[in-house]
Amino acid sequence: MHILLTISYDGTNYAGWQRQENAVAVQQVLEEALSTLLNRSISISGASRTDAGVHALGQCASFRAPDLRVPLDKLPVVLNGLLPPDISVTAAKIVSSDFSPRFGALHKTYTYTIYNAAHPNPLLSRYSAFVPQKLDIEKMQQAAVSFVGKHDFAAFCATGSSAKTTVREIYSCTVDDVDNLIKITICGNAFLYNMVRIIAGTLVYTGLGKIHYCEIPNIIALKNRKLAGKTMPPQGLTLIEITYPL
Amino acid sequence: MHILLTISYDGTNYAGWQRQENAVAVQQVLEEALSTLLNRSISISGASRTDAGVHALGQCASFRAPDLRVPLDKLPVVLNGLLPPDISVTAAKIVSSDFSPRFGALHKTYTYTIYNAAHPNPLLSRYSAFVPQKLDIEKMQQAAVSFVGKHDFAAFCATGSSAKTTVREIYSCTVDDVDNLIKITICGNAFLYNMVRIIAGTLVYTGLGKIHYCEIPNIIALKNRKLAGKTMPPQGLTLIEITYPL
Repeated sequence: MHILLTISYDGTNYAGWQRQENAVAVQQVLEEALSTLLNRSISISGASRTDAGVHALGQCASFRAPDLRVPLDKLPVVLNGLLPPDISVTAAKIVSSDFSPRFGALHKTYTYTIYNAAHPNPLLSRYSAFVPQKLDIEKMQQAAVSFVGKHDFAAFCATGSSAKTTVREIYSCTVDDVDNLIKITICGNAFLYNMVRIIAGTLVYTGLGKIHYCEIPNIIALKNRKLAGKTMPPQGLTLIEITYPL
Repeated sequence: MHILLTISYDGTNYAGWQRQENAVAVQQVLEEALSTLLNRSISISGASRTDAGVHALGQCASFRAPDLRVPLDKLPVVLNGLLPPDISVTAAKIVSSDFSPRFGALHKTYTYTIYNAAHPNPLLSRYSAFVPQKLDIEKMQQAAVSFVGKHDFAAFCATGSSAKTTVREIYSCTVDDVDNLIKITICGNAFLYNMVRIIAGTLVYTGLGKIHYCEIPNIIALKNRKLAGKTMPPQGLTLIEITYPL
């Protein structure tokens, strides 16, 4: 039996999704809970390698367990009883044996949240980046549309990435402002390393007037990381949803 | 010069507002920042003694500083530079020398937030109470109106309170539900120890069908703590606003 889990987490206290040495990752904590439940070592395969400090409301990961005795509809509640409060399983379903959470995804949606006010709000600082300078939302919205489409996003990729190609397709990129909370929502087929955080930083630069929105197509075309905005901090980023053709 | 500050804080890591021995309180951290700024020992007088784990977006506190050199409009930014990320000063203004943040308040507004869904959401767990059983919002709304008015709230006060009278006036009490996030908003002249958390617990019991909304006036009249609902946990409570006749 191949089971796909949907997982939410507060990434603040984790070294990211992917299991690693010398630091606790979300994958490790989830694997330990599953191993406790099934009384043997369980490995899970995640859809998206979120970075240290990045949050998720819709991460997906699968594991194989022909010996699972817990009914599938009870699995989230039972696992949540074994998980810390900053990780929660919200759904479980059976998928085919050849299903890949990573390569089978149709599209992924991320939000980047910015608190744009004169003074920081401690109740939002864990889940947003604080920008005290007034941002021009209309300019950010005009810039956002230039990211939509199939482009070579080399200018929006952190150095050291091992991606074979830097071409990705963005299906939508929108900017909303509700009560000083600016939400950038990006949906695409896949993302390069730090791509959403660099796009968010470029939109912030547009909102500050450091980059004109007309320049975005040119910045994409020139494929030069130095022309794009800064990499925004991890706490503003949340993996919202991963869609599969199921 | 007598200065009134408006303060926001994430109460998770504090033993409440009020300075105490053997545990770090918000008041102490704020007094230390002011003492650093003014290079002498500063005491502040707060409006509301929020409990351990309770949050604030509009706590108020005053201090006397005839020697303050920082311009008033720069004071929040300068203080925030000395404060940890979970405490933020959002406003500063001059008040009369006989002003009392505690006794001068016209009314105080609190919200109690409940996440009502099948599985916990780690991005909300720090600022809400999780209730997995489906709550009937309409019944909670019908119960909420019974709290409005001047009543003896002895049934909604934690034992051990030293209040001289248990009569308080509630100006409004509403229940809203947006995307499984239930917000109870209460505005009153003052509140007894744990009063908002016990009212929230009583509304939850009404939403679960354990208490009928018609019984609320009777529970108030009988002044028996055991007839009211349970005391909800601190993380759902936020002090939103304190209003003064200024």
